[in-house]
Parts: sequence; C-alpha cells; structure tokens
Amino acid sequence: MRLRKIKDAKTKLLEYSNLVIDNPEEYRGRWSGLFQNNNPIYLEIGMGKGKFLMEHAKLNQNINYIGIELSDSIVLKAARVASSLELNNLKLINFDASKLSNIFKDNEISKLFLNFSDPWPKTRHEKRRLTADSFLNSYKKVLIEEGIIEMKTDNRKLFEYSLIQFNKHNFEFLELDLNLHEKKNEEIITTEYEEKFKRLGSPIYYVKVII
Amino acid sequence: MRLRKIKDAKTKLLEYSNLVIDNPEEYRGRWSGLFQNNNPIYLEIGMGKGKFLMEHAKLNQNINYIGIELSDSIVLKAARVASSLELNNLKLINFDASKLSNIFKDNEISKLFLNFSDPWPKTRHEKRRLTADSFLNSYKKVLIEEGIIEMKTDNRKLFEYSLIQFNKHNFEFLELDLNLHEKKNEEIITTEYEEKFKRLGSPIYYVKVII
Repeated sequence: MRLRKIKDAKTKLLEYSNLVIDNPEEYRGRWSGLFQNNNPIYLEIGMGKGKFLMEHAKLNQNINYIGIELSDSIVLKAARVASSLELNNLKLINFDASKLSNIFKDNEISKLFLNFSDPWPKTRHEKRRLTADSFLNSYKKVLIEEGIIEMKTDNRKLFEYSLIQFNKHNFEFLELDLNLHEKKNEEIITTEYEEKFKRLGSPIYYVKVII
Repeated sequence: MRLRKIKDAKTKLLEYSNLVIDNPEEYRGRWSGLFQNNNPIYLEIGMGKGKFLMEHAKLNQNINYIGIELSDSIVLKAARVASSLELNNLKLINFDASKLSNIFKDNEISKLFLNFSDPWPKTRHEKRRLTADSFLNSYKKVLIEEGIIEMKTDNRKLFEYSLIQFNKHNFEFLELDLNLHEKKNEEIITTEYEEKFKRLGSPIYYVKVII
C-alpha cells in the first residue's frame, strides 16, 4: 500500500499509546498480560490501514488482534480510525516483521493473516516476500502447535510462489480458493485493497494452512 | 472427453495389436522388454485422442510413452492416427486406471501426465477424480523414487482439490502456474481440449510435483 508520508508520524503515534504499542519488544511473552485475558491472539502482518483487522476485532471480542505495519504513516492512519472504536482486543505495532521473534515468544500466536502483501516480483527481492523462507521459519516459531496462516492476494505470481513455499515448509493446506469472491459471499471480511479488486472482478486467491 | 461410441470398437482395436496392447497385465514389470530398451517410461492417464502423447513421442525418441484411456472408442480414434506415425516409443492401453498396479510394477514409470481429467465435481464422486487418495497412492507405487507428475486442467475446482491432495500426500511442488498460456509459449505441447480453452482465453492451471 502506498500512502503520502505524514510528517512526524512516529511522534504523533505516541498520542495513541494505549492502542499503538511503542515498545513491543517489552511485551515478548507477555501479550496476554497486556490484553488482560488468555484469549487467542491473531496477528496481521502488513495490516495497512487496518480495515480487515478492525472489522474482525469488532466481530470477535473473544479474540485478541495485533496488527503490524512497517510504515509509521500508515499505522497513524489506522490508529486514527481504530482509536474511535475503543476496542480492548486490538493493538497496533509499527515494526519490521522480519524481526518477529523479537516481539513474540514461541507459541504466542494462534493465527496469522497475510493480506495483499507486497509481491516483490524481482528475484533479487525474494527474501522480502512475506512467504520467503526466513519469514515462514519465524511464523513456525511464534505460532502455536496447530497454528494457522490465512493468506489472500490478487497477485498471481506471489500466490504461486507462496503455495510452493508453504508446501516446501510442510504446512498442510486446509482450504484453497483460486477465485475467492466468485460466490459473492458478503460475509468475507475484506481489506481496502481487496474491495477495489473485487469491484474490478480480478480473482482473489486464498489459502489457509496449518503448521 | 465425450465422443460418439464406435461400434465394435473393442474388436477393431485388435487390428492395432502392435500399438494397442490388448493384454497389459502380462507386461507388468516387463514394459522395457516390450520397448526393447531401458529408456524411461512416461505415462498419460486419460490420454483422450492422444494428440499430446503423440507429439511428445515424436519429439523425444529416447523416452517411451504409454497412454491409458478407459473408452475403447477413444482409444480406437487415437490408434487410427498413431498407427500412421509408426512410433516405436508409443503404446496405447484401453484400461481402467484405478487398477494401475495390475499393469505396472513398483518403480516402472518415470513420469505421469494428467491432462484435463474429468473433474467429477460432485462430492460423492470424489473417489473417481484422478487425484483422489487411492490414485495418488497407486502413482506413488508405480513411479520411480524421484518420479514426477505433471497436471494440467482448466477446471478450477479440480485444481484446488488436486493441490490440496498433492500437498497432503507429501508431494513436493516443483512448478506451479495459474495461467499457463499467458506467455503465449508456443513450445508447450497441448491437448485437443487445451487448444479450445487456449483460444477462449480461459486460464489453464498447471502443477509439476515430485514424490
């Protein structure tokens, strides 16, 4: 997702200290304590403006949601909307997902969402794709034993790559859909980006895997 | 593939006894002997009218090809074309692929092609799909240790099902393409059925897996 940079976004994020966790490393292994319950924690990596995560958090009060996003401007955009919702089960983090193990302990996350991740089409950027080897290895660590990953994308090449990667890393495919919105299922919670593609009629690819 | 039934097709097949093997069970473990060489054997299950197989056999004289097809009328149609080509590296069998182990010994086949197989969309017909559990188990037996399966289909649901199945049976994905003909690659050898879909612009799904 591309967005105009917001000036002093990093500083402005401090105004949302209850929602946007400024020192996530300190909560490693203690996220349940922060949420003050033992509900499962679902994580979205690259949450963008957070529409998907906020809708999930509203609908499922018994699940804790954490969104990670690298761009401070985008996190600020998300925080401005999310703060008005006053959801106790939602936290946002402005962080680089390649260091996931620095903020989550083994088995701390129950489910992980990858929605419309940057495809990084060039081979020399392969390592940046969120389904590259190093990412999948870190997901295996932070996820619980029967942990789930759900991935959605409109990018065919990224999806082909990701299926090969999930297979190579011995994830089991639970569900697979090469045209998710064909059924016009209004119950699917979409991202901002997804809405655009849905309108254009482009296929959305979906896979759900278990460790 | 649907085709008008040819009267006495089974009897007429006997005219092609050099090409169409009438007693395939007798060659179990002895196919190399029939071909009179030790070249690898590639097998197409549900070869239809055999265009794909004949083109491959013409291009690769150092590989032996066997086509299996359940319908005697379709095998006859294929035999009429193939006989004029006089290919020493091609044999056809009118046989039910669910009994594959009756005609091939363990490790007798190097590569297996599944091209535009019947999707059998109803759940109660799942067992008939060529990527159902019992078929995959028999493929694992007849294929060599590093045996390959290449699958092409235009049927999305069959492809989704098959990817889940290959993954579940621990095949490793070597290649995956969700729109095979996008590149307009003229080097891809097509089936009759595929040519039609290529013209219509429908996506052709492709996967290559290794045991």
